[in-house]
Amino acid sequence: MSSLNVKMSSNRTLPDCNPHLSQMPSDFLYHLAINIPDTQNTAEIKKRYGHIKVVCLGGKDGRMQELAKYINQNVYNGDSGTDYEKNLFADGHRYAGFMVGCVLCVSHGVGSSTMSVLLHELIKLMRYAECEDPLFIRIGTSGGLGVKPGTVVVSNRGYNGLLRSEYEIAILGERVARPAIFDERLRKKLLACAECLNGWDVIEGNTMGTDCFYEGQGRLDGASCINAKGAPYTVADKLNFLKRCHDDCGIRNIEMEAPMFAALTLHCGIRAADVCVTLLNRLEGDQVETPKAQLKAFEERPFTLVARFIKSHILGSS
Amino acid sequence: MSSLNVKMSSNRTLPDCNPHLSQMPSDFLYHLAINIPDTQNTAEIKKRYGHIKVVCLGGKDGRMQELAKYINQNVYNGDSGTDYEKNLFADGHRYAGFMVGCVLCVSHGVGSSTMSVLLHELIKLMRYAECEDPLFIRIGTSGGLGVKPGTVVVSNRGYNGLLRSEYEIAILGERVARPAIFDERLRKKLLACAECLNGWDVIEGNTMGTDCFYEGQGRLDGASCINAKGAPYTVADKLNFLKRCHDDCGIRNIEMEAPMFAALTLHCGIRAADVCVTLLNRLEGDQVETPKAQLKAFEERPFTLVARFIKSHILGSS
Repeated sequence: MSSLNVKMSSNRTLPDCNPHLSQMPSDFLYHLAINIPDTQNTAEIKKRYGHIKVVCLGGKDGRMQELAKYINQNVYNGDSGTDYEKNLFADGHRYAGFMVGCVLCVSHGVGSSTMSVLLHELIKLMRYAECEDPLFIRIGTSGGLGVKPGTVVVSNRGYNGLLRSEYEIAILGERVARPAIFDERLRKKLLACAECLNGWDVIEGNTMGTDCFYEGQGRLDGASCINAKGAPYTVADKLNFLKRCHDDCGIRNIEMEAPMFAALTLHCGIRAADVCVTLLNRLEGDQVETPKAQLKAFEERPFTLVARFIKSHILGSS
Repeated sequence: MSSLNVKMSSNRTLPDCNPHLSQMPSDFLYHLAINIPDTQNTAEIKKRYGHIKVVCLGGKDGRMQELAKYINQNVYNGDSGTDYEKNLFADGHRYAGFMVGCVLCVSHGVGSSTMSVLLHELIKLMRYAECEDPLFIRIGTSGGLGVKPGTVVVSNRGYNGLLRSEYEIAILGERVARPAIFDERLRKKLLACAECLNGWDVIEGNTMGTDCFYEGQGRLDGASCINAKGAPYTVADKLNFLKRCHDDCGIRNIEMEAPMFAALTLHCGIRAADVCVTLLNRLEGDQVETPKAQLKAFEERPFTLVARFIKSHILGSS
């Protein structure tokens, strides 16, 4: 693992994966539109972000705003003392970030590429703000594999579309594969918070993340549905593939971020978890046909679990 | 090329890359929140979208709204007769789409994964609406390679981070590489519209698109800066790589979408172009230090070029 080859930075919680950063006099987190005018004196950024203990990440701006509101209500009893409706990253016009107490709720868009840009800049932000051991938790929706819609999956490993538990990236023209494993301690604590929930399942499982929602996930309803030989693939081909995912790799849900998210956080020494609710069972179909009100209720399940975790393990109350 | 192996659909302009679509009684374009209640009778969707001739795509919602306004003003002389301020995809909470005359301006977010989801659903929308030979034009920002900031690059081919002119995707667990070539006829027409512009350059060049903005583009200012051997890479390593891109592959700019966009549109029989302005010269640095007002002016350059193209080649006026 490449993160072991580099020495620890002055911030003891994070390994230094980029020795150039300490040589840069200033830094501009371009996509967040946050300026670090002096990297040697980050008192101002520490004042604004140094207290952050948990970064929650999710696809949509609106959902992250709802999460901030939910945490204000359910973790802080309506009194977080923060302006959780203010989008801190509005000037960047790409991501939305809402602070509620010691939690930062940030939208990442759809898929690995957009989330990767965000993660690089958030990890640098945590470093400049000298946050101690910040936890990154993705709260998302996904397609389920052999589990009842509404099941919440807390991911063990990320798998890519080649059924390998790694994230592939091209660096300086060379293919690099980094292991995609989520933090075990964090996962176990999240699973422990699932006790006594109202009749819905929280399970541990592996999560496939693909760059393509349609052909990448074996769907039959994309604009294209063509296999590696250049011929259309069939329902049977799809089911064979999904069964391989389920039986051989222990994959229980499919989304578009898990391997990149697991790999980049592990590589940079950030403890991370992926908590996704399943909206359909892909062994039964490709289209999301769950009624809107039910989807809304499903989407709130990861909120409930993560809010419980923050309340009991981060704030130490019950 | 796999698109040659499949027969043409009833819509003569698009090859049928998915024989399952004609078997589906209904379709829900999930991320756009557009329902196709009866795939055999799409009169309603044809009424709403059948007149679309050009789909313009760009990263940010706000920029696409500005583009719609710009086209209304500069192509239609302020009188397109369409409610170009209404976001047609608002219910999906992920992408924004604005219609202005025969042009649809749509935001795709950052990078290939999010744009791929959008493209699949837009291509299906064009098919259901029976649009004739719709052109897809991406209007974006990019890092330049050996060209003056503010230069507009009209892409010939997309290149991935491995310096291959293809897009790699995993389908049913197998690696598939599709050629990433933009439409020649459309590119030449766009380049021809560049005559008599006010002192800025429009060039033809190849475009590298990577899934990672930082390590994927050889930047030294990401949260991580580690090469394939697990060691930090240097300024010299970066410059060697960027020179290879420039000299060996004819790459003149770098963004995060080109190979996927070129490959998926070519594969599905859609004629497409990538028109990006460069914000900096990556041979001179990694950070965007151009003043905000200048960036704003740069961002309008592709608007100007594409509006000219639409006016003269689509609407047939001068």
